Amino acid sequence: MSHPVPRETITLDEVKQVIEAAEAKAREIGQPMDIAVTDAGGHLKSHVRMDGALIASISISINKAYTAIAFQQETANLQDVTCSGGDLHGLSDAHGGRLVVFPGGIPLIRDNEIIGAIGVSSGTIQQDQDVAAAGAAAI
Amino acid sequence: MSHPVPRETITLDEVKQVIEAAEAKAREIGQPMDIAVTDAGGHLKSHVRMDGALIASISISINKAYTAIAFQQETANLQDVTCSGGDLHGLSDAHGGRLVVFPGGIPLIRDNEIIGAIGVSSGTIQQDQDVAAAGAAAI
Amino acid sequence: MSHPVPRETITLDEVKQVIEAAEAKAREIGQPMDIAVTDAGGHLKSHVRMDGALIASISISINKAYTAIAFQQETANLQDVTCSGGDLHGLSDAHGGRLVVFPGGIPLIRDNEIIGAIGVSSGTIQQDQDVAAAGAAAI
Amino acid sequence: MSHPVPRETITLDEVKQVIEAAEAKAREIGQPMDIAVTDAGGHLKSHVRMDGALIASISISINKAYTAIAFQQETANLQDVTCSGGDLHGLSDAHGGRLVVFPGGIPLIRDNEIIGAIGVSSGTIQQDQDVAAAGAAAI
Repeated sequence: MSHPVPRETITLDEVKQVIEAAEAKAREIGQPMDIAVTDAGGHLKSHVRMDGALIASISISINKAYTAIAFQQETANLQDVTCSGGDLHGLSDAHGGRLVVFPGGIPLIRDNEIIGAIGVSSGTIQQDQDVAAAGAAAI
Repeated sequence: MSHPVPRETITLDEVKQVIEAAEAKAREIGQPMDIAVTDAGGHLKSHVRMDGALIASISISINKAYTAIAFQQETANLQDVTCSGGDLHGLSDAHGGRLVVFPGGIPLIRDNEIIGAIGVSSGTIQQDQDVAAAGAAAI
Repeated sequence: MSHPVPRETITLDEVKQVIEAAEAKAREIGQPMDIAVTDAGGHLKSHVRMDGALIASISISINKAYTAIAFQQETANLQDVTCSGGDLHGLSDAHGGRLVVFPGGIPLIRDNEIIGAIGVSSGTIQQDQDVAAAGAAAI
Repeated sequence: MSHPVPRETITLDEVKQVIEAAEAKAREIGQPMDIAVTDAGGHLKSHVRMDGALIASISISINKAYTAIAFQQETANLQDVTCSGGDLHGLSDAHGGRLVVFPGGIPLIRDNEIIGAIGVSSGTIQQDQDVAAAGAAAI
């Protein structure tokens, strides 16, 4: 019997396409970025910190991708509901400090299934979102 | 002398009844849920993640039940007081990141004693509360 | 377009069969156990703490299942190599305190793919392993 | 005055060369790997998890590179001294759980300066070391 193997939900080749598309968008807008892609389990497949991008955004980009997996949606959706007075105010405190509740994390979809996620950080939240969207569009 | 045993405040049989009632309610409203039940010490007795429920809600459901034990009341009661300007704003910072301050965690009561708690997460806070209440009613 | 959904690697129905088989074995040998099952991403699908089982083993059972996923093999395989003088001495320190390097964690296999894992804790390591094996055999 | 920029000790282009060389070696020996490269500050510049490589090795590969920076030497050098009875037994306990004390982490050197580090994990420690060395040779 052969050794059992994990089922990869997204291949490294696909991940590299996503990151390349995101990097291209980041260069186009002139904002160096941290870009992370996880598989469907929220585990890191690849990360790139462009020259000049923030050290702080290493974990933020990874956690944005994780959050998009954990909540099955864009991190942008979590912004309003977690503000003071919102339904989910205090959400991050309930999840071990790994949630990001502002834009820049987007699920990667194929055939209506979530196969991974991209997280982008270092710019404004609009820039982060735009670069993440460019990456997500490469799937 | 026999080996001393811990006093169980709630049995696994009782816990399974609570979870089954909560699962039934979740199916009825068409919202897959993470459902967790702790004993009176706030320690997990059982957890179920229904197919389609959120990975993020594993810890949130467990922490909702923990919070209901830790504060001897429903987590819903903590929502207003922890908002910006509220009496207990910043409460989570004082408690190691395990508190949930929105609905979905409810103590389990028998003979006027708290014998455990249920925590439910993955839907809207109203759905979470309704499913938790259905579980709590099974005791 | 319908809402994108996560692909479940193991269903809750399958998980319940695994846990029931493990519980039956635990009762047969007279040792109450913490039993945890994760999906292929290492995320908890269900946990049961039998009456009398250890509170300490809540996290140990969950982490055994996680470790079996993270290393794509039984946790028993990690015992010798992590001892002083072993090739991977100090392994746990490199992984955030979630690894378990003794028996009781076993991958769940279907069609030669790892679809999840079971982790069992509260007894001797031989008892833990036997109960985990009984659960794994139910897939 | 223009916005001050961080001095990059290693560029992303250089990092990609290192990772490509390591990936090529990993494919040559038929062992999928987690490969991480940090800058001179020990902060992640890029990470790749090849298809089939271990989830556990995400953090281990990153921490191997970090350790090579933190100790200004290969992680292989830490193996004997940290064993039970060794001069630095218990070293990890003094450093927040990020140290790896077995082979696979190697500093990247240019003009006799440490400009970054590579960490490789998922195979045997000899395989990890060989792939890391192949990557380090690309600088």
